[in-house]
Amino acid sequence: MKYIGINGYGTIGKRVADAISLQKDMKLAGVTKRTPNFEAKMAADNGYNIYMSDPTKEQLFEEADIKVAGTIDDLQDKIDLIIDCTPEGVGAKNLKSYQRAGIKAIFQGGESHKEIGRSFNSAANYDENIGADYVRVVSCNTTGLCRTLTPIAEIAKIRKVRAVLVRRGADPSQVNKGPINSIVPNPPITPSHHGPDVQTVLKGVNIFTIALLVPTTLMHQHNIMIELDSKLEIDDVVNKFGESSRVILVDAKNGLGSTAEIMEYANDLGRLRSDLYEIAVWRESINIVDNELYYMQAVHQESDVVPENVDAVRALLELGDSNVSISKTNQSMGIL
Amino acid sequence: MKYIGINGYGTIGKRVADAISLQKDMKLAGVTKRTPNFEAKMAADNGYNIYMSDPTKEQLFEEADIKVAGTIDDLQDKIDLIIDCTPEGVGAKNLKSYQRAGIKAIFQGGESHKEIGRSFNSAANYDENIGADYVRVVSCNTTGLCRTLTPIAEIAKIRKVRAVLVRRGADPSQVNKGPINSIVPNPPITPSHHGPDVQTVLKGVNIFTIALLVPTTLMHQHNIMIELDSKLEIDDVVNKFGESSRVILVDAKNGLGSTAEIMEYANDLGRLRSDLYEIAVWRESINIVDNELYYMQAVHQESDVVPENVDAVRALLELGDSNVSISKTNQSMGIL
Repeated sequence: MKYIGINGYGTIGKRVADAISLQKDMKLAGVTKRTPNFEAKMAADNGYNIYMSDPTKEQLFEEADIKVAGTIDDLQDKIDLIIDCTPEGVGAKNLKSYQRAGIKAIFQGGESHKEIGRSFNSAANYDENIGADYVRVVSCNTTGLCRTLTPIAEIAKIRKVRAVLVRRGADPSQVNKGPINSIVPNPPITPSHHGPDVQTVLKGVNIFTIALLVPTTLMHQHNIMIELDSKLEIDDVVNKFGESSRVILVDAKNGLGSTAEIMEYANDLGRLRSDLYEIAVWRESINIVDNELYYMQAVHQESDVVPENVDAVRALLELGDSNVSISKTNQSMGIL
Repeated sequence: MKYIGINGYGTIGKRVADAISLQKDMKLAGVTKRTPNFEAKMAADNGYNIYMSDPTKEQLFEEADIKVAGTIDDLQDKIDLIIDCTPEGVGAKNLKSYQRAGIKAIFQGGESHKEIGRSFNSAANYDENIGADYVRVVSCNTTGLCRTLTPIAEIAKIRKVRAVLVRRGADPSQVNKGPINSIVPNPPITPSHHGPDVQTVLKGVNIFTIALLVPTTLMHQHNIMIELDSKLEIDDVVNKFGESSRVILVDAKNGLGSTAEIMEYANDLGRLRSDLYEIAVWRESINIVDNELYYMQAVHQESDVVPENVDAVRALLELGDSNVSISKTNQSMGIL
């Protein structure tokens, strides 16, 4: 059995911990926490072993009556692979420690491709990463783009992709982030970094992205324009998305005309935290005019990368090929 | 002297009334009000003659102690031209009444091009509309697109325009409109109607638009991608926008990195209602890659069409050519 640790138990870390726990071919050895906040208490209630990422805080954990199993170094001794879910930019600094410990590591999209060396998306390049030591799962936005660009690239020749990414300003619990009543070009330059980030997994695709922030917390929204070098019909696209893993079609006319209504649908699915792991494509938005494909999609920023993290474990630890892993992950997590 | 009436004294009507009052070559004969609300009181305080668009409400005006000069029919008898600022779809129904009264009329972008027959933007097609009887000033979003596409078309050959319009959900005072925390593809189909609307004034331009609503009240934001059939440098674009009427360049690095900060700048300009008549283009966003021009701009939805309404009066009443009118309007309104 392969043992997995999670470093950082925040928005992504807690979700990945729960998802790893659902798998039969790997075992969650423990998670790290920096401070004994409500999430630490809930991790303990879940029966997760808690390791301190900052051993100087031991007394705080004692005072909070949260039992710790040791420090992050102790965790590293017990595991085959660590999933780093620390805040943006921190992960790359941890890489050396993982190397010293002789464990494999998965990082999140906040780290740069250059520092980690490899980037990962299940649909786009799982098999290229089998047996690798270190990999980063690309960010929620890049994952969203890869999820729908990959199937299109399978049925058509893509000449150029243009995408405008309308990003949520903050996650629902981030009370100190904005904007409240403003549209913020972010970055204010063109192109944004998302295009090059897509190219780290979809090599050679010609893509130009523009990104902005808006005052909402629920989901990102993408406006995608794909110039094609081959003929394609709207029905081909609908059918291809319909059969693609982790992509769902939603209809505005059925009451799913906004990100808020899509999250209401996710609530009704009854999943933990009401997460929507799938990328939702608005069926009505799919159009082809003058050999150019247009569509709009929504991305649940807190959860779409969670199944990719599980698959990345299997790729790095050679627990199966992409079809095997995607199928196991989807089945265990109830992905549509 | 030419006499002008305003039918509807709401968001656009009150602004147009104030702008007409500033002109020396036309005179505001009066404005219509349906109900004696705070705006009616303020119009009376401004010394504007108030005409009832619904004569059955005379008693309400009496009770509110607002003096009325007559009904809309009385107003129509006194004027050469009426500017219809009634809610979307109402204007076209008023057209016959204006025809019977033998007065020229200007409509807003909520009416369809087909029903009015002519569409207007000062930069794009003023001179085509000289002497016309009826014209619609295109909507705030279409005006924003025309303001920057026209100068680009003057210095380059445009092959295709793609634009994603991130629209404010409601005006600041519209307390019953949403969205509050959601991104809404609006329409959920592609393309949106804005492209064809641009074509009513910029004939023959190949343009595809996608539109959505976000939870903000301040400004629309546009992401514009222009494939060029001729060579162009970034500096050419910066210089051209810099000398274009009703277009301003703003720098994110100077603290103008969002629609909220741009409206703060408009506040500081000290204009009535803190309006920003100009289209604000983020200088840093202007880029040319592979012969395609990219830029982002912000549009103050409540006021950008106001100077166009003034110019449309001069076009229809043959009070001067486009250069004369734009210059008079800009000077009187303090437009940058």
